[in-house]
Amino acid sequence: MPQNIYDDPEFFAGYSQLRRSREGLAGAPEWPVLRSMLPPLKGARVLDLGCGFGAFARWAREMGAARVLGIDRSENMLARARAQTPDPGVTYALADIEHLALPEAAFDLVYSALTLHYIADFGAVCVTIRRLLVPGGHLVFSVEHPLFTAPRHPGWRTETDGAKVWPINAYLLEGRRVTEWITSGVVKYHRTVASYVNSLLVQGFQLVRLEEWGPTPEHIAEHPAWADEVHRPPFLLLAARLEEVP
Amino acid sequence: MPQNIYDDPEFFAGYSQLRRSREGLAGAPEWPVLRSMLPPLKGARVLDLGCGFGAFARWAREMGAARVLGIDRSENMLARARAQTPDPGVTYALADIEHLALPEAAFDLVYSALTLHYIADFGAVCVTIRRLLVPGGHLVFSVEHPLFTAPRHPGWRTETDGAKVWPINAYLLEGRRVTEWITSGVVKYHRTVASYVNSLLVQGFQLVRLEEWGPTPEHIAEHPAWADEVHRPPFLLLAARLEEVP
Repeated sequence: MPQNIYDDPEFFAGYSQLRRSREGLAGAPEWPVLRSMLPPLKGARVLDLGCGFGAFARWAREMGAARVLGIDRSENMLARARAQTPDPGVTYALADIEHLALPEAAFDLVYSALTLHYIADFGAVCVTIRRLLVPGGHLVFSVEHPLFTAPRHPGWRTETDGAKVWPINAYLLEGRRVTEWITSGVVKYHRTVASYVNSLLVQGFQLVRLEEWGPTPEHIAEHPAWADEVHRPPFLLLAARLEEVP
Repeated sequence: MPQNIYDDPEFFAGYSQLRRSREGLAGAPEWPVLRSMLPPLKGARVLDLGCGFGAFARWAREMGAARVLGIDRSENMLARARAQTPDPGVTYALADIEHLALPEAAFDLVYSALTLHYIADFGAVCVTIRRLLVPGGHLVFSVEHPLFTAPRHPGWRTETDGAKVWPINAYLLEGRRVTEWITSGVVKYHRTVASYVNSLLVQGFQLVRLEEWGPTPEHIAEHPAWADEVHRPPFLLLAARLEEVP
């Protein structure tokens, strides 16, 4: 059974206080870019892997999605999501992304925000998503950037000349990383950009767009603490499309 | 006029001594991966951007390429390439990649090894390559990896616990970098992985494969000094294909 840090009370309390938890999509600085990578949602059947409190599910319905299924492995998350979503077009289910029992070709869009870096086997996830999508269907997701997940001891350092740097190591050594985020012992999985991209390509996805999110000058003017993020992007955003069967 | 460091006598002398210069393709550790990303060459019309001493041009002819045009902006390079290539199927020409005057849709493959990071405007190069390729044509190239080109003061550091790290900064700040390699004042251009990929996608290329080259255990057994490269890949390799016109 994979770790479910989101059901740890201390972690959940801390997570609930994050800006992106309190403010939903508006509290996630990368959301405008991720949103711009989505296909039109009108009439779409949407699967959200790692739906959290359901902010995306509710937004997708506002945009005209026919129905949204939100999957999460945290009961805490789902309880709050259900309480906040009085909409019969949205369903939430407790499930592991690695073991989804869902019908084939039932979705037009699979979406996932900051979840798939918790999954050990991304290639297996791509196989599953290909099975769940209709031909021509879309996959749009964000993960922690491989530059963020690579180092064995992640963190900013200051060089002798005062320059801020993010020391990288083990970039090509994929696998489990145990880090501190809100609480200690958070397990995630480092993969290279190449792994994310090639795992999609070998499953018959076409890459539509790849973004390495960083703050704009406007972001930095409003949130000066974000300035360092131009040195090392925190998020990798990918949009891909399943080939139409000829 | 862009810098042409390869016509600097000190640089050229040093470059000529590199293993990859003395041994050709066999001296480039990333070559087996790059080779595996190439389409079949039999009958192909090939353009090599930054052909250097012509090692790839000669190999492509051995593999059955119909003809190869090698472009370089260094007279020194081309003189040696011509002397080493007694083959009427290979032509070498002095030209800037930014200002190629070649016929449209005349090539099946555009190849470039460790050259395009010297070019300021990669988007413009993609426009040019699209014009030169036939529909369905291939582009395969290597560049210095963005993790290699990003830092303002690139180099390995040793952490207090003895760990080797490669400090990153300015990753999202694209543009000119002046570094030391063989000689001082070598000008190259840093771009993100996202820039390389999206510049291709917006020109109608489909991404075929993306590799971040690093040494295998066999490489490290033979060349122990390469071990550090697993911490930060030195090369980015990309294969793309121009969409067929429907």
